[in-house]
Amino acid sequence: MSHSANPLKIVVIGGTAAGPKAAAKARRMDEHALITLIQREPELSMASCGFPYYVGGTFDDRSLLICTPAGVVRNPTFFSKAKRIDALVETEAVAIDRNAKTVTYKHLPTGEINTIPYDRLVIATGATPIRPSVPGADLNGILTLHSMADADKLRSIRDAGQVKKAIIVGGGLIGFEVCEALHLANIETTVVEKTAQVLPFLDSDLALLVQNHVCEQGAHVITNNGVAEFIGESGHLTGVKLDDGSELPCELAVIAVGVRPNISLAVAAGLNIGTQGGIKVNSFMQTSDPDIYAVGDCIECTSLITGQAVRAPFGDLANLQGRVAGQNVIEPGSAEFPGITQTGICKIFDFTAGITGLSERQARALGFNEIETATIAGLDIPTFMNGKLLVSKLVAEKKTGRILGFQCVGSGDVSKRVAVVATAILGRLTVNDLANADLPYAPPYSLALDHVIVAAHVLENKLKGRMQGIVASEVKQKLDQGAPLFLIDTRNPDEFEELRLGIGEHLIPLGVLRDRLNELPSDKAAEIVVYCRISLRGYEAAALLQGYGWHNVKVLEGGLMAWPYPREK
Amino acid sequence: MSHSANPLKIVVIGGTAAGPKAAAKARRMDEHALITLIQREPELSMASCGFPYYVGGTFDDRSLLICTPAGVVRNPTFFSKAKRIDALVETEAVAIDRNAKTVTYKHLPTGEINTIPYDRLVIATGATPIRPSVPGADLNGILTLHSMADADKLRSIRDAGQVKKAIIVGGGLIGFEVCEALHLANIETTVVEKTAQVLPFLDSDLALLVQNHVCEQGAHVITNNGVAEFIGESGHLTGVKLDDGSELPCELAVIAVGVRPNISLAVAAGLNIGTQGGIKVNSFMQTSDPDIYAVGDCIECTSLITGQAVRAPFGDLANLQGRVAGQNVIEPGSAEFPGITQTGICKIFDFTAGITGLSERQARALGFNEIETATIAGLDIPTFMNGKLLVSKLVAEKKTGRILGFQCVGSGDVSKRVAVVATAILGRLTVNDLANADLPYAPPYSLALDHVIVAAHVLENKLKGRMQGIVASEVKQKLDQGAPLFLIDTRNPDEFEELRLGIGEHLIPLGVLRDRLNELPSDKAAEIVVYCRISLRGYEAAALLQGYGWHNVKVLEGGLMAWPYPREK
Ligand SMILES: Cc1cc2nc3c(=O)[nH]c(=O)nc-3n(C[C@H](O)[C@H](O)[C@H](O)COP(=O)(O)OP(=O)(O)OC[C@H]3O[C@@H](n4cnc5c(N)ncnc54)[C@H](O)[C@@H]3O)c2cc1C
Ligand SMILES: Cc1cc2nc3c(=O)[nH]c(=O)nc-3n(C[C@H](O)[C@H](O)[C@H](O)COP(=O)(O)OP(=O)(O)OC[C@H]3O[C@@H](n4cnc5c(N)ncnc54)[C@H](O)[C@@H]3O)c2cc1C
Ligand SMILES: CC(C)(COP(=O)(O)OP(=O)(O)OC[C@H]1O[C@@H](n2cnc3c(N)ncnc32)[C@H](O)[C@@H]1OP(=O)(O)O)[C@@H](O)C(=O)NCCC(=O)NCCS
Ligand SMILES: CC(C)(COP(=O)(O)OP(=O)(O)OC[C@H]1O[C@@H](n2cnc3c(N)ncnc32)[C@H](O)[C@@H]1OP(=O)(O)O)[C@@H](O)C(=O)NCCC(=O)NCCS
Ligand SMILES: [Ca+2]
Ligand SMILES: [Ca+2]
Repeated sequence: MSHSANPLKIVVIGGTAAGPKAAAKARRMDEHALITLIQREPELSMASCGFPYYVGGTFDDRSLLICTPAGVVRNPTFFSKAKRIDALVETEAVAIDRNAKTVTYKHLPTGEINTIPYDRLVIATGATPIRPSVPGADLNGILTLHSMADADKLRSIRDAGQVKKAIIVGGGLIGFEVCEALHLANIETTVVEKTAQVLPFLDSDLALLVQNHVCEQGAHVITNNGVAEFIGESGHLTGVKLDDGSELPCELAVIAVGVRPNISLAVAAGLNIGTQGGIKVNSFMQTSDPDIYAVGDCIECTSLITGQAVRAPFGDLANLQGRVAGQNVIEPGSAEFPGITQTGICKIFDFTAGITGLSERQARALGFNEIETATIAGLDIPTFMNGKLLVSKLVAEKKTGRILGFQCVGSGDVSKRVAVVATAILGRLTVNDLANADLPYAPPYSLALDHVIVAAHVLENKLKGRMQGIVASEVKQKLDQGAPLFLIDTRNPDEFEELRLGIGEHLIPLGVLRDRLNELPSDKAAEIVVYCRISLRGYEAAALLQGYGWHNVKVLEGGLMAWPYPREK
Repeated sequence: MSHSANPLKIVVIGGTAAGPKAAAKARRMDEHALITLIQREPELSMASCGFPYYVGGTFDDRSLLICTPAGVVRNPTFFSKAKRIDALVETEAVAIDRNAKTVTYKHLPTGEINTIPYDRLVIATGATPIRPSVPGADLNGILTLHSMADADKLRSIRDAGQVKKAIIVGGGLIGFEVCEALHLANIETTVVEKTAQVLPFLDSDLALLVQNHVCEQGAHVITNNGVAEFIGESGHLTGVKLDDGSELPCELAVIAVGVRPNISLAVAAGLNIGTQGGIKVNSFMQTSDPDIYAVGDCIECTSLITGQAVRAPFGDLANLQGRVAGQNVIEPGSAEFPGITQTGICKIFDFTAGITGLSERQARALGFNEIETATIAGLDIPTFMNGKLLVSKLVAEKKTGRILGFQCVGSGDVSKRVAVVATAILGRLTVNDLANADLPYAPPYSLALDHVIVAAHVLENKLKGRMQGIVASEVKQKLDQGAPLFLIDTRNPDEFEELRLGIGEHLIPLGVLRDRLNELPSDKAAEIVVYCRISLRGYEAAALLQGYGWHNVKVLEGGLMAWPYPREK
């Protein structure tokens, strides 16, 4: 190849994740293209996902958020030298002219306006945090965590050590990351969530386990209660009033109720917007204008599970999509992005919460009615290697056994299990496939049968009618309604002394159950619920009881470890 | 169900992993079957895979190796009480009569012989460590690590603190686990491996990286040299003589050169033995006698990749197969075990080494000639989260892109990456599928694009002809042969000062490469090799140079981090 007389002109709008990735990949595809990256903010290529860890003090060197692994800051000089990309910072693209094939941009510090031609354009304008429109929302002390400037502000609040109380508005991933960061900064922090549960991507029982963990760490969580008003004095936030009328004093509020795709440029240019409010693209990341591509938080994606359009504002996807667009702007049609499985994860104090695919609630809302689920608790690695707890829920189609989703929370290695099931969903594996998977086993890394395999075994048992399950919330509801459940805790007396539900259960250890069948209801149709610490012995007890004719025996799924309600001990 | 008048009689031979699993599952399938477990050793259900960690002192409570997570030792009383399984320990099955459908067994302490009838039989006799037949092999001080008694012996050697030097014969997984355990016990340990490389399941470059790590930790490794003779005085081991005539003093030798399936009972009963020396079974785990099943280390499995018979003596598979047989002995034909992908892992000091599927060497030996590979180095999580190194090799079919294998070594989280690719292989995913996978990303758990995704990107680049790679051993060989390579290190001068190969390379940082093209060979066909720390910048440099007409530019795969040979600095 020689210097082309007529190099391709590529313009990329947006310089955080998807944009730089597209530009960088385009460069590797064509050394001679003219590539311009337009970025509104002063920084480029920020690891936004690292902001909470900088704010919380996991590391103190701010430049780590914007430098390469070799320690070079990704500023315009870097982009120019290492990638021959012309990166314009503090510069806003203000209009796209599709006929003239130009982008008009404004240098924000000077107000200077210019126009640049493109052969192919990439829109990577990302998203903007949603701000609730309640009174007082413009007081000082109300922040979001989205930009580098936000991160700087929150970090300086941490370093100043003046703020004593903070409110996080919104109990999603970023809300809890910020909660942890502020808690680490010795700020008393309360997460306020308008809906009935935190972490909306999880089913409620699992979300409640995470919420309990947060509270055990000393932070506070309020659900079913939104922020109705921000209260202030002389322009400064002093507290919030909630929907139920109660007031909480605070000097800082961080809003984390989700993001809205930045589509105004695209709308003004007449590009198609999808049903979910993001720019519509095909699998080549092409918008309705074949010379304009869009990637990252500003678009909507296709779910590989449902085929439907979904928004998925995630950093990994922004990079993957940017890479696909970077190929196509040079060689149109050369790369495709197949779609997503909604796989995400978050560290929340000593817990991790992760999901891939659909929760039970999402699946049902989408019309998957013939599904089965299994909630299990178990260790990630053996007790003798200091195993830590995982609580998971696997969701699958009844008829085909196809895995639709997996949630996992706990102090153990959640990330590996979610990654494995995400890959299983990508491969359209069934419960039976996962139940027989050959995974890497050695004691430092898993149980002989890994947690995900056990989850598949339990779900298989349910699908084959070998186990009837009941989740904690159902048991709670039945108890609250006074249903005549016969509850059996199958652990040993010493375990029972240490920890127990105290919901009217009978203690009958598995090892003596066969000798004490006479203590059970004589009515073989009686509703019996069995459990133990994780409901492994509970399940064995249920199989046993079925052998003696009781046919309405249910295993409390995940046992004590998945019980998210108060216990006697 | 009511008490059956004619309960099924199930007999299981072998009580370590596969056997107890089959028996336990059979019980859950049928509360009324009569289940007998025959075990030669005094213990049952031992976590053999935990032996090295007990020997090395990761934990001190021996009973953890044989107890349930609730802390109950799995002895015959436990099996009787919790599982209603009649477990006969210190009892050897000595004959199977397929016509009478009986098993004859001998109580070893008393010599008493009995016979028990079966409707269905499970053989789970496991495997026995191979002992090389060299002079002196019967000296005191020559052990294996396979049984609980072996573990006890090695642990007591650790606790006594008398042994100063030990030899491990065999550089496989168990060899290195024992090496680490003895090293932790302050014993100077040398692994002696007869073939040219340790860890035969890895390709040689990666194996050498692990070997280097072991040596950096202060243990010794000798390859290309077998044990020719054990030397002793008054019946006690005092040293070994190697094939090359050299002698190494030692008071302890642990042999870990693999295992041989225990098939004598099966052979005597006339059951079919497979080509790999294990009992032949179908996907129901059924032997050539439909009422006899076999599971675990005594059988041979089917590779899901090649369809061929392979031996795979792994604890996870023993449990999975036991579970399948446990179903079929009660409900014949109700469960199938589809096959395996040869997925295994091992902790070796601060490294982990894992593999799933085929190495390049195995793939080629099996006739997969049209394959492509990518070796990459990278971090598991971001630098600001304290990321650790991973070096991997992905192997795929050229035509279809189907992933055939993945090896990963390093101090980072290898286990997650191997588990993900194992699942990808199970789902028959292609490189392109993995290259666009939606995995769980957050900074505590991965880079925005996880290591396995980057591996897929690099392999994709090679498959599409966008990157030419060359592995360390090839470069080394070319240099040794005096080939006129033009080598470019594309890092910064300060990085070069700290660490460098010193193999005649030119230091031209990526950021100035475009300005210094005149320093390159004028012959555009010259063989140029570029690299950096991990060869990311090396790859960018290669793409750049291709843009200026050099067409024989190769990236040193994995860069400095995957270079297993001595360096200048
Ligand atoms: C605190 C935090 C934590 C997160 N944690 C995770 C996580 O753990 N895992 C995960 O997967 N994702 C996480 N995310 C999400 C992830 O950061 C985003 O998905 C990703 O940054 C999206 O990249 P993007 O380039 O599409 O958009 P953005 O990051 O929003 O970047 C868009 C850029 O375009 C610029 N821009 C917009 N309009 C214009 C214009 N007209 N002209 C010029 N420039 C313009 C913006 O200023 C911005 O810099 C997190 C996000 C935040 C804020
Ligand atoms: C030190 C060590 C570390 C290991 N690490 C790992 C690891 O990290 N990951 C992994 O996947 N695998 C590992 N393994 C392998 C794993 O332990 C085996 O694959 C597993 O134990 C096989 O189970 P099994 O029941 O088929 O056979 P075995 O464990 O061999 O058990 C067979 C049992 O049958 C008994 N028996 C044999 N013949 C008779 C008879 N005629 N009558 C009565 N009883 C009989 C034997 O005494 C033995 O107790 C390790 C093994 C060892 C020794
Ligand atoms: C970094 C950034 C500018 C992209 O630039 P980039 O050059 O594409 O990315 P990298 O520096 O990671 O380089 C990746 C290239 O090197 C290749 N590579 C990585 N490791 C390699 C190795 N060991 N050997 C060979 N090639 C390697 C990759 O495959 C990729 O090339 P390809 O896309 O052509 O296949 C962009 O991702 C970014 O801005 N990231 C930071 C912000 C962000 O991601 N935020 C959201 C999450 S916090
Ligand atoms: C333990 C052993 C005796 C098997 O007994 P087991 O009763 O099948 O095994 P577990 O105690 O793990 O119980 C597993 C059962 O509980 C189920 N289970 C596990 N966790 C559960 C939970 N949280 N809720 C409901 N059910 C659960 C499993 O699905 C399984 O049932 P299934 O096979 O019918 O599906 C056998 O595996 C063994 O001997 N292991 C130790 C030795 C060994 O594995 N060595 C080699 C590797 S070191
Ligand atoms: Ca993701
Ligand atoms: Ca395995």
